[in-house]
Amino acid sequence: MSFEDLGFSKVDTDRERRTGYPEVIYGEGKSAEQIYQIMQLLIDKHERVMVTRLSKDKAEQLTALFPEAVYHSVPRILLYGRPLQQYQSEIIVLCAGTSDLFVAEEAALTAEWMGCPVKRIYDVGVAGIDRLLAHREEITKASVLIVVAGMEGALPSVVGGLVRRPVIAVPTSVGYGAHMEGLTPLLSMLTSCASGMSVVNIDNGFGAAYQAALILQLASEGEQK
Amino acid sequence: MSFEDLGFSKVDTDRERRTGYPEVIYGEGKSAEQIYQIMQLLIDKHERVMVTRLSKDKAEQLTALFPEAVYHSVPRILLYGRPLQQYQSEIIVLCAGTSDLFVAEEAALTAEWMGCPVKRIYDVGVAGIDRLLAHREEITKASVLIVVAGMEGALPSVVGGLVRRPVIAVPTSVGYGAHMEGLTPLLSMLTSCASGMSVVNIDNGFGAAYQAALILQLASEGEQK
Amino acid sequence: MSFEDLGFSKVDTDRERRTGYPEVIYGEGKSAEQIYQIMQLLIDKHERVMVTRLSKDKAEQLTALFPEAVYHSVPRILLYGRPLQQYQSEIIVLCAGTSDLFVAEEAALTAEWMGCPVKRIYDVGVAGIDRLLAHREEITKASVLIVVAGMEGALPSVVGGLVRRPVIAVPTSVGYGAHMEGLTPLLSMLTSCASGMSVVNIDNGFGAAYQAALILQLASEGEQK
Amino acid sequence: MSFEDLGFSKVDTDRERRTGYPEVIYGEGKSAEQIYQIMQLLIDKHERVMVTRLSKDKAEQLTALFPEAVYHSVPRILLYGRPLQQYQSEIIVLCAGTSDLFVAEEAALTAEWMGCPVKRIYDVGVAGIDRLLAHREEITKASVLIVVAGMEGALPSVVGGLVRRPVIAVPTSVGYGAHMEGLTPLLSMLTSCASGMSVVNIDNGFGAAYQAALILQLASEGEQK
Amino acid sequence: MSFEDLGFSKVDTDRERRTGYPEVIYGEGKSAEQIYQIMQLLIDKHERVMVTRLSKDKAEQLTALFPEAVYHSVPRILLYGRPLQQYQSEIIVLCAGTSDLFVAEEAALTAEWMGCPVKRIYDVGVAGIDRLLAHREEITKASVLIVVAGMEGALPSVVGGLVRRPVIAVPTSVGYGAHMEGLTPLLSMLTSCASGMSVVNIDNGFGAAYQAALILQLASEGEQK
Amino acid sequence: MSFEDLGFSKVDTDRERRTGYPEVIYGEGKSAEQIYQIMQLLIDKHERVMVTRLSKDKAEQLTALFPEAVYHSVPRILLYGRPLQQYQSEIIVLCAGTSDLFVAEEAALTAEWMGCPVKRIYDVGVAGIDRLLAHREEITKASVLIVVAGMEGALPSVVGGLVRRPVIAVPTSVGYGAHMEGLTPLLSMLTSCASGMSVVNIDNGFGAAYQAALILQLASEGEQK
Amino acid sequence: MSFEDLGFSKVDTDRERRTGYPEVIYGEGKSAEQIYQIMQLLIDKHERVMVTRLSKDKAEQLTALFPEAVYHSVPRILLYGRPLQQYQSEIIVLCAGTSDLFVAEEAALTAEWMGCPVKRIYDVGVAGIDRLLAHREEITKASVLIVVAGMEGALPSVVGGLVRRPVIAVPTSVGYGAHMEGLTPLLSMLTSCASGMSVVNIDNGFGAAYQAALILQLASEGEQK
Amino acid sequence: MSFEDLGFSKVDTDRERRTGYPEVIYGEGKSAEQIYQIMQLLIDKHERVMVTRLSKDKAEQLTALFPEAVYHSVPRILLYGRPLQQYQSEIIVLCAGTSDLFVAEEAALTAEWMGCPVKRIYDVGVAGIDRLLAHREEITKASVLIVVAGMEGALPSVVGGLVRRPVIAVPTSVGYGAHMEGLTPLLSMLTSCASGMSVVNIDNGFGAAYQAALILQLASEGEQK
Repeated sequence: MSFEDLGFSKVDTDRERRTGYPEVIYGEGKSAEQIYQIMQLLIDKHERVMVTRLSKDKAEQLTALFPEAVYHSVPRILLYGRPLQQYQSEIIVLCAGTSDLFVAEEAALTAEWMGCPVKRIYDVGVAGIDRLLAHREEITKASVLIVVAGMEGALPSVVGGLVRRPVIAVPTSVGYGAHMEGLTPLLSMLTSCASGMSVVNIDNGFGAAYQAALILQLASEGEQK
Repeated sequence: MSFEDLGFSKVDTDRERRTGYPEVIYGEGKSAEQIYQIMQLLIDKHERVMVTRLSKDKAEQLTALFPEAVYHSVPRILLYGRPLQQYQSEIIVLCAGTSDLFVAEEAALTAEWMGCPVKRIYDVGVAGIDRLLAHREEITKASVLIVVAGMEGALPSVVGGLVRRPVIAVPTSVGYGAHMEGLTPLLSMLTSCASGMSVVNIDNGFGAAYQAALILQLASEGEQK
Repeated sequence: MSFEDLGFSKVDTDRERRTGYPEVIYGEGKSAEQIYQIMQLLIDKHERVMVTRLSKDKAEQLTALFPEAVYHSVPRILLYGRPLQQYQSEIIVLCAGTSDLFVAEEAALTAEWMGCPVKRIYDVGVAGIDRLLAHREEITKASVLIVVAGMEGALPSVVGGLVRRPVIAVPTSVGYGAHMEGLTPLLSMLTSCASGMSVVNIDNGFGAAYQAALILQLASEGEQK
Repeated sequence: MSFEDLGFSKVDTDRERRTGYPEVIYGEGKSAEQIYQIMQLLIDKHERVMVTRLSKDKAEQLTALFPEAVYHSVPRILLYGRPLQQYQSEIIVLCAGTSDLFVAEEAALTAEWMGCPVKRIYDVGVAGIDRLLAHREEITKASVLIVVAGMEGALPSVVGGLVRRPVIAVPTSVGYGAHMEGLTPLLSMLTSCASGMSVVNIDNGFGAAYQAALILQLASEGEQK
Repeated sequence: MSFEDLGFSKVDTDRERRTGYPEVIYGEGKSAEQIYQIMQLLIDKHERVMVTRLSKDKAEQLTALFPEAVYHSVPRILLYGRPLQQYQSEIIVLCAGTSDLFVAEEAALTAEWMGCPVKRIYDVGVAGIDRLLAHREEITKASVLIVVAGMEGALPSVVGGLVRRPVIAVPTSVGYGAHMEGLTPLLSMLTSCASGMSVVNIDNGFGAAYQAALILQLASEGEQK
Repeated sequence: MSFEDLGFSKVDTDRERRTGYPEVIYGEGKSAEQIYQIMQLLIDKHERVMVTRLSKDKAEQLTALFPEAVYHSVPRILLYGRPLQQYQSEIIVLCAGTSDLFVAEEAALTAEWMGCPVKRIYDVGVAGIDRLLAHREEITKASVLIVVAGMEGALPSVVGGLVRRPVIAVPTSVGYGAHMEGLTPLLSMLTSCASGMSVVNIDNGFGAAYQAALILQLASEGEQK
Repeated sequence: MSFEDLGFSKVDTDRERRTGYPEVIYGEGKSAEQIYQIMQLLIDKHERVMVTRLSKDKAEQLTALFPEAVYHSVPRILLYGRPLQQYQSEIIVLCAGTSDLFVAEEAALTAEWMGCPVKRIYDVGVAGIDRLLAHREEITKASVLIVVAGMEGALPSVVGGLVRRPVIAVPTSVGYGAHMEGLTPLLSMLTSCASGMSVVNIDNGFGAAYQAALILQLASEGEQK
Repeated sequence: MSFEDLGFSKVDTDRERRTGYPEVIYGEGKSAEQIYQIMQLLIDKHERVMVTRLSKDKAEQLTALFPEAVYHSVPRILLYGRPLQQYQSEIIVLCAGTSDLFVAEEAALTAEWMGCPVKRIYDVGVAGIDRLLAHREEITKASVLIVVAGMEGALPSVVGGLVRRPVIAVPTSVGYGAHMEGLTPLLSMLTSCASGMSVVNIDNGFGAAYQAALILQLASEGEQK
């Protein structure tokens, strides 16, 4: 591993060669100036970069500097350039409610930027199970499923029982009271009775998509002997 | 309200007149001798009594003294006599997994002892949603539904979305790790996205059945003007 | 179940036929524009709609578009139209303190909008038990009781012991310190020593009223054979 | 302050002179041999000693060595000798349920051993409020009230509203599930809406009685100028 | 108990006769208008009133209406009139750090308003134990001690070991990180190794002072036979 | 989905056809008799079955009835028969300490039974980073990595940074004090700074292996178009 | 110990003589006016003072009054004067990510102000272990290491395994969701498998540096006989 | 770093050369047979070994095999051989109560085995502050202080304020109720108002002593330039 040292940050410029993807910038807690410097370095090296958790006002400063960059305000993601590879298999992103969209879109955009075809199936929470079952055929065709849910976080368990592919569950901070800012669906997903399911941090649509893309990458390379 | 004072306990002997049901004895933390005295008092008064959370060895001492009493070892309930009223409407008790049976049976036996017809639908956890859907028609006919689930506690949300009757959710202590002895499904049920649902304490099959019976009682009396 | 797909939301237009009530819109986390579209759809179909947890500024935008809609600022509810049915039996909503009013009113308005006669008994917290006992006769006449309390959440236990009807307890976020934003009265109500009581999420006056209305609906239909 | 150093323990032999009471031995986590040595020292000095949280088998070893000592098995207290002073005012110990007796008796015996007249009012939990109200007159005559409750811990709030004397609340570990081994009634009592009430640790009947006795001592000495 | 019903509030106008003190108004969560009405009622009846947790802007509105009322901005208390009785014995209020002043002053002002002489000993946290020990003689002369501390909440344990009078401990929300907004000192005080100490809610200086005043009242009346 | 109803359990006999794997029996909370019946049914149908979380004494009863079954006492797994498919790609199971072996072996045996080649790299906790780095070359060749760790749960983050394949992290209950029976490494893994990592429940080696096997299955089938 | 009493604060003016360092002012919760008075007192006495957790606007007021004082905005520290002693040995401050800088700088500046040479190694989180290993030689030369990390808090464990000197771990509030504002890395660091490591409160860079400086002071004095 | 691979364990045989101390065996969760093999390896290499958290029955098996080894039953430590170096400076181990002895002795024995002179000052909890102050002179002479306390964990704060040397605080699991098995004193110590103090895990006497020994080692080597 080699990296570029900016003082406040050591940027991993070797990452794309090693993993297929350049480093991604986590925007929270960094100043627009710091992000600008890291972006410049990564664009020079890779011609592409993604910034997550970027506030609107920092995004405005950065798009002024990088006019080609596109900011998506719901998932708060800034994209520049496009990835090298493009996979064939499909990732399906499901979400339970309209309020979970910001996380679902973080997942969907990340996966697309990493070269994955994405199908979105939104607002299919378990309290109206027919809305999900209307997509039953469809979801069994996905290679990987990302299931986003706030409130009680029950959707991934139901989906996990319908498919034979890996399910990555994402709890969201959408809810109130006993929901404890997402801790309840997080713990609930971890104790799911469905097999073949794993979980990422609250609102971490990016992390789920990243793992899903690695799985597609592996599938695209076929068996490793 | 009038009561009989045993020193260690004040027994509410007027309860059946007021509420339709005699006082129920919570067996945990009481000695066999204490339970014996309270039972004797209640049998003298009402000819019926129920003891919950009764350990096997205390049950053996008490059935020796009250040969007519019947002990159910899975839900750890001792029953003596039968209630006055018998309702027509049906309560359905559902449970998610085989390990939740001890709570589901506490609910079912309590409801029956309070005069409610009970239908049991067990092992219909959401990770195999077709097992539940096979009973779809059936569950829409219940007047009240008691839904028992451990692990992530997702079953009540799905059931709640399928029916237009009150759903009482009971989380169980069945699970491990992030399940935190039932706290996770408890909180999860409280943040359910289904309307018309309320929750009782972990493993509290008795409490759910008690409320369900009060609802049937109300329905049997019809509108109160 | 059939639904209308707005892309960001799948609206259940068949709900009134199945359950007696049209879908209710949860306002938090949805934009005024999104709510507008769902309202339009539901009004076209049912001529009635309720929006809960609606902020004042969104309410102003929406009442400008739907002049017939009425906004209640304490419980933050927007109402349009009125329900089909009207029950005879009465729901009583009690609350412990003046600060719990916003939740009690969410419950009361929801119940009324669902066709239930509602009596309000407010500021009867247990630390001045005579205020509650002054209503003793009255509360035994309710068909269902919704008991709202913040702080230590003790009121439902006392009420539960005075009546033979279902009690639905609602903890509120009113309190400080060890109150932990409502978690303490929530847990406290769940461990209540009163029988026949169940609990909904913190501040969830809507959920309590919804279940109460389902119980009245059942009672109005009488025994189900 | 002067003390006797036993190596494993520094015994405060000066305490009675300073505070009116000799040091009390907390039995848990000490061996019978260690307790024996501390008892011997305190008896030599004061002719009286109390040991709390003492298991039955250690008690048997110690009563064999000190035949005058009396062991109370429910509150697990060993008493030897009697205190110097005897107050006139009365402490009332109330408890909510039969299962809370072990804590209530720890409080009552401690208070008596410290010279306080004690009246016991047991099994008056709030879910049957008339049992408490039957003692209304009586409890307003106490100088201090110790209120012991498990489950949701609501009793002290109600009592606190009925009297104008200090109320010391003691939560107990009696309950299950959301009760979290006493944490729920502990937090609940701390957020009580009643004024003039304070709280001690879960099951700490001793601590409550100790403070109550200090209050009686102060009252017996009258105003301090 | 008799009360005046304002609709949103039932004001206990009989309280001074029963307990020696008129009702106190908890300002949080009430509008200036609501507080105004309750104040008016209580002033008409008792010529005195205290409002706690009152924000500065509400205070400005109310002092405009009641020019005799005095607002204390650090503890956020509004006082009107003065109590009937005046005790002789002294309460000492100690606090650990400068940042805990707002709670210590809530306690001190409340106690004074209830007729208790108060001595303040501030900024005597245990990490500089000599600051406390410099007041050793003084604190043994108090009749009751209120000990306020944030951070680790250790001060009450040390004070409790120095005196033979009741100690009421008040944890504060002053601290960060593992302090968890006061939960840590709260729990810490509850597990104190000092005897004769009890605890009130986080930042509840009012509650501690209220109980302390009741103790002084009892002491002033002498033994109750 | 079709299933066989044993009354206490609904066995999914169609699962192998749908997912490639027969249903797995979770042994905890089921009696030996119940497990026997489910095993018999699954063996009749599939000639293979796995039972997890099986206590030693139940295992002895079952191996007496199924002499071909093999019991592994460290991970408490009973295996009967072997799976249909055999993949080429490799799963690596790493664990941090010797005490984590029981979870690591649950993962390894599960993966093997599902047809995956497994390499074990044990006792490579991060406090001796050279032990892990000695396997650096090796771990980059795995197709999926299962990383098991108790204590602070740091190993998956380090491994996640070394590879470009999916990492599934498994926290264990090995630790004490602030470790809170595994909750600490669970939460810690969820907040990992490594991308491409997801998490399963505490001690859930089975769940991690199940998802890993699904990923290998997908890879063996190649891209899905 | 002697101190100066400002009423709201007792300033320890004797501290430098006793410990080598004057008292440090914790800025949070104190007014600019209060800080000014304490600063004045300490400058008169010691010619040096440090204020931590000082907001920008209070800093502006104070630098206007003390033009020689320097405010560092990232760690929010105000420095005036310089310490008496200067040690030879080196402290290394490491941090995991760019967002942890504010805590790392609080530690670094504090240590420097206390006379310690400080080397900074930033952005060396464990998910890119080579960035840390590039400094391997260097870190073994430190006398004490302060390791700052948010997210999962794994860095101190790895560093602890590489050196034979004391490691002081500082968790930060940088993270989201399961990170629980720093509680997760705090608990995680406490259960570290590395020996020779201890932990301070979340974001407490000051506390870590203070202890590190005491260690250097001890080392500079050599063995104490 | 080089290590010996026993399959279930990778033993670091190079550790003494690197750090001055051979690897220590954590006995919990390892079988007597596994410990035996690791001990044999370490004795062959270093002629010394320490095993911590060793149960009595495993200790009996191991002392039969290594007759020179000595088992200390209170701290559950097995010692074999003695360390190379011997420092001059002194560590003082203080503990708050008799019940904390098992942790204090784990710390004291570990420090002695690592070559540190240790002075023990036991049963000096803050509720009898004079017991601690009687040792005031003495404790200012220590080079490092290890302060062990259960209950509210206040002792380290007081000690920290009396000395100018590093204080390492060890919370213990001794307490009940709100003490939460040590979590309360752990959090309490972390929020201490004393400077120069750090904290280790609950009951981790070993960890505190290990860091203390590293500090003495550094002091014995003098300044590092």
